[in-house]
Amino acid sequence: MKIKDLRIHSIAIADPPLRSSYGLHAPYALRTIIELESEDGIIGINETYGGEVPAAALRAIRDQVIGADAFRLTGTLNPEMKFKPAGIERSQTFLVPGENPLDESSRTYAAIEVACLDLIGKSLGVPVCDLIGGRVRDRVPFSAYPFYKHAGGGGEGDDLRDDEYGEALSPETLVQQVKQMIDTYGFGSIKFKAGVLDPEQEIATVQQMYQEFGPDVPLRIDPNSAWSVDTSVQVGKALAKELSGGGYLEDPTAGIDGMSAVRRQLLDAGIDVPLATNVAVTSFGHIPESVEKDAVQIILCDHHYWGGMRQVQHLAKLAETFNIGLSMHSNSHLGVSLMAMAHVAAATPHLTYACDTHYPWQSAKDEVVLGGRVPIEGGCVVIPDRGGLGVELDYDQLERGKERYRTIPYRKRDDEAEMQKHIDPNWKRVLPRW
Amino acid sequence: MKIKDLRIHSIAIADPPLRSSYGLHAPYALRTIIELESEDGIIGINETYGGEVPAAALRAIRDQVIGADAFRLTGTLNPEMKFKPAGIERSQTFLVPGENPLDESSRTYAAIEVACLDLIGKSLGVPVCDLIGGRVRDRVPFSAYPFYKHAGGGGEGDDLRDDEYGEALSPETLVQQVKQMIDTYGFGSIKFKAGVLDPEQEIATVQQMYQEFGPDVPLRIDPNSAWSVDTSVQVGKALAKELSGGGYLEDPTAGIDGMSAVRRQLLDAGIDVPLATNVAVTSFGHIPESVEKDAVQIILCDHHYWGGMRQVQHLAKLAETFNIGLSMHSNSHLGVSLMAMAHVAAATPHLTYACDTHYPWQSAKDEVVLGGRVPIEGGCVVIPDRGGLGVELDYDQLERGKERYRTIPYRKRDDEAEMQKHIDPNWKRVLPRW
Repeated sequence: MKIKDLRIHSIAIADPPLRSSYGLHAPYALRTIIELESEDGIIGINETYGGEVPAAALRAIRDQVIGADAFRLTGTLNPEMKFKPAGIERSQTFLVPGENPLDESSRTYAAIEVACLDLIGKSLGVPVCDLIGGRVRDRVPFSAYPFYKHAGGGGEGDDLRDDEYGEALSPETLVQQVKQMIDTYGFGSIKFKAGVLDPEQEIATVQQMYQEFGPDVPLRIDPNSAWSVDTSVQVGKALAKELSGGGYLEDPTAGIDGMSAVRRQLLDAGIDVPLATNVAVTSFGHIPESVEKDAVQIILCDHHYWGGMRQVQHLAKLAETFNIGLSMHSNSHLGVSLMAMAHVAAATPHLTYACDTHYPWQSAKDEVVLGGRVPIEGGCVVIPDRGGLGVELDYDQLERGKERYRTIPYRKRDDEAEMQKHIDPNWKRVLPRW
Repeated sequence: MKIKDLRIHSIAIADPPLRSSYGLHAPYALRTIIELESEDGIIGINETYGGEVPAAALRAIRDQVIGADAFRLTGTLNPEMKFKPAGIERSQTFLVPGENPLDESSRTYAAIEVACLDLIGKSLGVPVCDLIGGRVRDRVPFSAYPFYKHAGGGGEGDDLRDDEYGEALSPETLVQQVKQMIDTYGFGSIKFKAGVLDPEQEIATVQQMYQEFGPDVPLRIDPNSAWSVDTSVQVGKALAKELSGGGYLEDPTAGIDGMSAVRRQLLDAGIDVPLATNVAVTSFGHIPESVEKDAVQIILCDHHYWGGMRQVQHLAKLAETFNIGLSMHSNSHLGVSLMAMAHVAAATPHLTYACDTHYPWQSAKDEVVLGGRVPIEGGCVVIPDRGGLGVELDYDQLERGKERYRTIPYRKRDDEAEMQKHIDPNWKRVLPRW
């Protein structure tokens, strides 16, 4: 199945003013859509990080891709999947996903791998999950993903989006936001992005969610490393009840040593709330130290930066082996990424939590998937009975995304700069902030 | 790709009187050949352990296989791939591969997985290694595998085989055996099956091999746990030079604690010869304790009992992550297993040693592969440019193997019984023997 063309499309999609410890989301998130076309005219697609750097990395391997066989290309590129050294100084704790140079080869590999799998699957009429080992589930559960946010739906100028969820900077408005998401999508668990307000207010927010939705809706809180070890332990103690029963405390503090200290102190206090991460452990090279120090009990996988679907499957088996839970990380994304996440989750037996997704924050106006937004029903994405990822491109929508990219100034994600521009000119990301 | 039939063929193949700490090889080794036929008449094949128990396990899942889709069957069966508990009392240290009830589900799963991959690959014209991630090598290196042996080429009565290698029970005859194997197959490394004679004689054997073949031919010695910790350390010290430079000491003693003690004492003596295993660690459940105790530095994978090709790929990534080497284990086998071993090795980046194979001990008279024995040239099996495993069945030969199975009394491997029958009526496997 020879590849005759690789097309790389940089697009921009509106993104609401969401807050996190990284700062503020810009009015647009950047994504890259790629197409791999085979000699017989079948087109495999994929979605990955946006902006200049990921697109340049893909352009740089173009000569290796054109003329390659779709079944063999992943093997050929594999030696480039360099093993990350442990002890990376500036990991994803400091650099947002997509901007960490140490993960670049894994991201680029993943982008090509999934496009190859889509191309193969579309050519054969076989869903991607069944190409990589066979589905163990047909319905993949995702979580509600509430954020503190300012008023506004994303976009700029004539391109403003409706503000579907409104401003949410208090416990009550966050609870309302979650209710709205659950009403729309049927989510059965909640992942709450914290690290924005004082810990007391975030504790109160979780408590109100727990009161509203009850113990059967697992709750997670993720302050993106905004807290010191002491603060993390205090929050863990305060929310021991709310985060138990399938919930977790995600990246309360920075680094493997910090997470390990939080875990130890919570256990010493009789609190067994597991710690999850998508920043302390972001590559296989981090795992031995993390295991040795019992730093994290749940790893959030993400095929976009872990090196693709098969690497996520390896990670899952490794996690199962060491009695580590597996959840899934998300960034702002469209339906192609959502389907890729669903397929790898469908073919990963040891996926022990509902996956994260930013999908509710995106708009139909930006979707590049033919037929519009991918349905999430009962909190789940259902694997469609179609080849590959099960979605194709709407080329008009793709062109709108590309045009938008060409006309906006944003070329990389910089949440700190957005904070300085809109909220506080002196704002800096400080870890720990509390 | 719907499966319309599963055919299970129990066969027997002549096996020379090879010795190990388990005892003596019977005149016949038992194998099972399976066929999966798709609705459009394509036949996927595989080879696995023989005798009654493996065949019965395959018959027991027949209803799940017939009517299933070849792409999806592995996902459907996956929940049966139960996680093995750590601390298994009678592991492969005591029970030969294929006879450990705790691995039964992994063995059965593996048998079906590889047959599905062959069926898919043959249907698409794609080699199996490229279905499971893409080859990272075209030529898969194997080792010479000398054994102490009595006179005889295997088989019984009118079915006796030529004794290609002759009796070998001294250092000189072992060296001669290796020379003959290297002349025939071009192997570039040597794995020596020990645990049979006094350690002093086995040390002398390795020393003579080293003198004959030099430091560029890596040497391994595998006594199958026949030694105490003290004896293992003494041998490790005596062979520090001969086993360095790409060699290793395989399963000198029983169990994770024993291996850990040997490792520690050798390191304390300044000797960094790595320890390998295919019995102390035989499932993912064994790995955490082994890592914690630094019990083994190399794991010998084997898709036949680790749960198939994808599980071996998971194991390889796990091994890479924890800085553990990966080699490959073998049992007496024919060309279908050899090709399956070659394909998974081709698609496994972190394979750090040449693979084991018993293939030189088998005979063309028993080969069920159409066209005869699979070539090993320059010590390597070359991935052929054909779909699936790249080999098909010779049905006349298969029928001969089945007829042989029907007429012999052997129904499971029992090396102890063979020792009692032919060498010493009071022989028992005792660990440690020395």
